[in-house]
Amino acid sequence: MCECRDAIGIFDSGVGGLTVLGSIWERLPHEPTIYLGDTARVPYGTKSADTVIRYAQACSRFLLERGVKLLVVACNTASAYAVDALRAQHDIPVLGVIEPGAQVAAQVTRNGRVGVIGTAGTVNSGAYSRALAATGRDVEVFSAACPLFVPLAEEGWTEGPVPRQVAERYLGGILARDIDTLILGCTHYPLLKGVIADTVGPSVRLVDSAEATSRAVAEILDGTPLHRSDGSEPERQFLVSDSPEAFARVGERFLGRGIGPVTWVDF
Amino acid sequence: MCECRDAIGIFDSGVGGLTVLGSIWERLPHEPTIYLGDTARVPYGTKSADTVIRYAQACSRFLLERGVKLLVVACNTASAYAVDALRAQHDIPVLGVIEPGAQVAAQVTRNGRVGVIGTAGTVNSGAYSRALAATGRDVEVFSAACPLFVPLAEEGWTEGPVPRQVAERYLGGILARDIDTLILGCTHYPLLKGVIADTVGPSVRLVDSAEATSRAVAEILDGTPLHRSDGSEPERQFLVSDSPEAFARVGERFLGRGIGPVTWVDF
Repeated sequence: MCECRDAIGIFDSGVGGLTVLGSIWERLPHEPTIYLGDTARVPYGTKSADTVIRYAQACSRFLLERGVKLLVVACNTASAYAVDALRAQHDIPVLGVIEPGAQVAAQVTRNGRVGVIGTAGTVNSGAYSRALAATGRDVEVFSAACPLFVPLAEEGWTEGPVPRQVAERYLGGILARDIDTLILGCTHYPLLKGVIADTVGPSVRLVDSAEATSRAVAEILDGTPLHRSDGSEPERQFLVSDSPEAFARVGERFLGRGIGPVTWVDF
Repeated sequence: MCECRDAIGIFDSGVGGLTVLGSIWERLPHEPTIYLGDTARVPYGTKSADTVIRYAQACSRFLLERGVKLLVVACNTASAYAVDALRAQHDIPVLGVIEPGAQVAAQVTRNGRVGVIGTAGTVNSGAYSRALAATGRDVEVFSAACPLFVPLAEEGWTEGPVPRQVAERYLGGILARDIDTLILGCTHYPLLKGVIADTVGPSVRLVDSAEATSRAVAEILDGTPLHRSDGSEPERQFLVSDSPEAFARVGERFLGRGIGPVTWVDF
């Protein structure tokens, strides 16, 4: 178990949050990280607010007990439902993926018409609409739940006729609303970026919240004593609540590189 | 909570087992039933043996505490991994969906070449191969995991180009092995029966284990004091570990009729 008491703690229901972790590693290469994938309870995106909050609290308690200095909720559904509850409970910074993504979208949209795609949970929560409204920019939001995108990404079917037809069916409605910006509101969706970009065409800008979130993490740490910027090799841990082997296998696609040892934990 | 101490207890990770429940209702219309859908932990099909056994034990303990007289594991993955453990623990009859389906397949195959489709868990477990071998009939088994079938069925995308292309991609390999019988080894798959039948063609017989399982339940109860055959209206309960509303909405498609009150339970 990790002995370093100053890691960034990152959790997700499974492998999706690895797109966020990869972006944090790129931007903050010297920070130790503990990634927790709650693979025994995955997915969160189809489950109710109460259940997702309960699971997110269990994940964050587990990471806090390991002394993390900052908590990243690397799952849109958990961010949508649980970030407020986690902030109220913990006295370290808690960062979700929704606010950073919404801020980027509010900056880049020209016509103020923003699309959001995500799990049923994220879309039903209305969290992106609230986060976009909170930016102060006058934005109209059009959203669509895309439940099949998660299993397609996990199955590795990220190109070809099946994902293309699924994307056309899910995105047709919001494309008809003349959006110029589309938030990929689920950490699985960057794997389908190619097919989504082809479907929406070059006039719609895609916002990937992994990138926006890692920038927000850097902004919080920058200039504080918490920030680690020396040249040492940081510790990088992977913990999961179900099979480590399955996580390592599927996770490589999400992280874009091999995953070292993965440890099973019960919590 | 149910007061009747002689119900048939049926559990599944979610809605899939409702295809088994519907078949039990048809065959045994006077039997009280308690259906437990473990929707807070759904799906089981992508998870490890250890985790599925743990969840199946929790479900069965919960139903046993309510005094059920017979336990039906209405989920192929849980049947594949956990039936032996549950039989060892409980002194009421425990019935999975795999043995009944395998027995029917062994009876109907002419050329002894049987296909099995299911979740990754069911296929990797080898449970159908063992159950077919145990029938005494000399059968060759060819199997394929079809992970996208479950989300397609839950999304209600059961016809049209997307499920057809998914079916062609998953089934091509086993069809090339000259099978004449195909076991639908997941309780979700009866919803995709049309598209699966079109893909495999008329020379391949489909075996739906819901039907086979309800017949096995009737055989166990028939002629025993446990069997209820009088004309009274039996109690039929639905319990779930996540949102009752979502279960009722999706479940109607699986049961083929409206679902009455659904109660949330924690276990």
